[in-house]
Amino acid sequence: MILLDGKKVSEEIQLSLKDRINSLVERNITPGLGVIIVGKREDSIKYVNAKKKVCEKLGIHFFLKEFNENVSENELINEIEKMNNNSEIHGILVQLPLPMNLNKEKIVNTISVNKDVDGFHMINAGKLFLNHEKQFVPCTPLGCMELLDHYRIDVEGLNITIIGASDIVGLPLSMMLLQRGATITICHIRTKDVKQHTKHADLVISCCGVPHLVKNDWLKEDVIVIDIGMNMLDGKLVGDVDFLEVKDKCQYITPVPGGAGPMTIAILVKQLVESCERFSKL
Amino acid sequence: MILLDGKKVSEEIQLSLKDRINSLVERNITPGLGVIIVGKREDSIKYVNAKKKVCEKLGIHFFLKEFNENVSENELINEIEKMNNNSEIHGILVQLPLPMNLNKEKIVNTISVNKDVDGFHMINAGKLFLNHEKQFVPCTPLGCMELLDHYRIDVEGLNITIIGASDIVGLPLSMMLLQRGATITICHIRTKDVKQHTKHADLVISCCGVPHLVKNDWLKEDVIVIDIGMNMLDGKLVGDVDFLEVKDKCQYITPVPGGAGPMTIAILVKQLVESCERFSKL
Repeated sequence: MILLDGKKVSEEIQLSLKDRINSLVERNITPGLGVIIVGKREDSIKYVNAKKKVCEKLGIHFFLKEFNENVSENELINEIEKMNNNSEIHGILVQLPLPMNLNKEKIVNTISVNKDVDGFHMINAGKLFLNHEKQFVPCTPLGCMELLDHYRIDVEGLNITIIGASDIVGLPLSMMLLQRGATITICHIRTKDVKQHTKHADLVISCCGVPHLVKNDWLKEDVIVIDIGMNMLDGKLVGDVDFLEVKDKCQYITPVPGGAGPMTIAILVKQLVESCERFSKL
Repeated sequence: MILLDGKKVSEEIQLSLKDRINSLVERNITPGLGVIIVGKREDSIKYVNAKKKVCEKLGIHFFLKEFNENVSENELINEIEKMNNNSEIHGILVQLPLPMNLNKEKIVNTISVNKDVDGFHMINAGKLFLNHEKQFVPCTPLGCMELLDHYRIDVEGLNITIIGASDIVGLPLSMMLLQRGATITICHIRTKDVKQHTKHADLVISCCGVPHLVKNDWLKEDVIVIDIGMNMLDGKLVGDVDFLEVKDKCQYITPVPGGAGPMTIAILVKQLVESCERFSKL
């Protein structure tokens, strides 16, 4: 069994970005990330702080705007438009989820397509779906692809089962894997018997948020497992896969934490640096 | 075995549109479809003529612009922009495929999102992928959904295998079925053993263009089969499914011709009439 060490790969990506950021800074350009957070959700604050920490470490300007949960849609949209027009900001993200009374679609689609480092804008989603030339794609799926690439795992022709069909993880990841020639099965809450779809798969990816859902008898020998779940169980962060129970069956498996998670932030800053480089050429 | 009679359902849809078109005409508004064809491909001419015939029958204005295959990208784009600005045209389509030297993406994305009755524009693709409120979606996939609806086949929880992952049929259809709660497996040319993915499926959909690919032993008893293939074999139009060999095993099956095919045009004119109704309210 080989661990897919997302922490290590994430650090390598960050290191390679450091050089690119330095060349930008030499030309008096500092990459800048604009982040909007609404409310006081503990998990959202934790994710935003993790992004801030990486940005500070790499010398990326971090522009944080905090709103309380009573903020109006218009106030948010005004702030996004300010960031769209701010030449010091090369990427903008709105930390999700937003309070229910706010129109997430409208707010996310206000972000300039050219600064949409989270890849959630409908035009960037359309480009991914149609396999057009891509500018930004969702970070967690691209992180998984780069983790597979790092370990030289070629997905062409593999039978892959994905558990979870969200528009920010499961679906974009399905598209990326399809575009590389994998055969894809997408399961979700309304799938009758998920195990039936995992037990013959060459690669199983779980992103459904059910702690320890995937058990030993769900998998075939020598399977590859990518666990994108981040769940609290008895005060501990665990994935969707019962790691201890399945690990000896796996050819490769991601640990949780330290697998898909750290890759997400690495890809976010990578897309931000690419964006800054594009803007610097304009 | 029950035949999914696309011809009959298509005629019912056209009949229901007739009333809506009449109410528009009473208000001095005639729905208009702009069609651009490049070159002399026999199949393309046949498809365009079929659309023209239905439009004429329903009293829809049909604005055809024919170009020879040496037309420049700019000439096409100018023509599309004229149609975008022509208030007598409520839907525009460019007959595909285009000659290789033309940039299909650029040309299709020049069509106004609000007149994109084929649903191929990247913004309409993004809306479908993200399950946002939809304006236009690709006609063949929506035709399949309406055919299933007509026969009250509820796909929620069904295991569905789709053979063919094109961005205009297989993929959009996968998204529509997922959004209705089906579990989806997407196969394609690089799938190692397609039969392994069809033989336990509740519903098999083929849109890969290989005549008589799907055989009796590829299917389980009481399967539902939708055959979107249109292939010439020994001078005869046949589907991707070996109809005679499999039909007695099926709970439902589409014939070819007369199944998915006629539904496509019905949906095209339906989306056009909806577009005209939207414009008439502006």
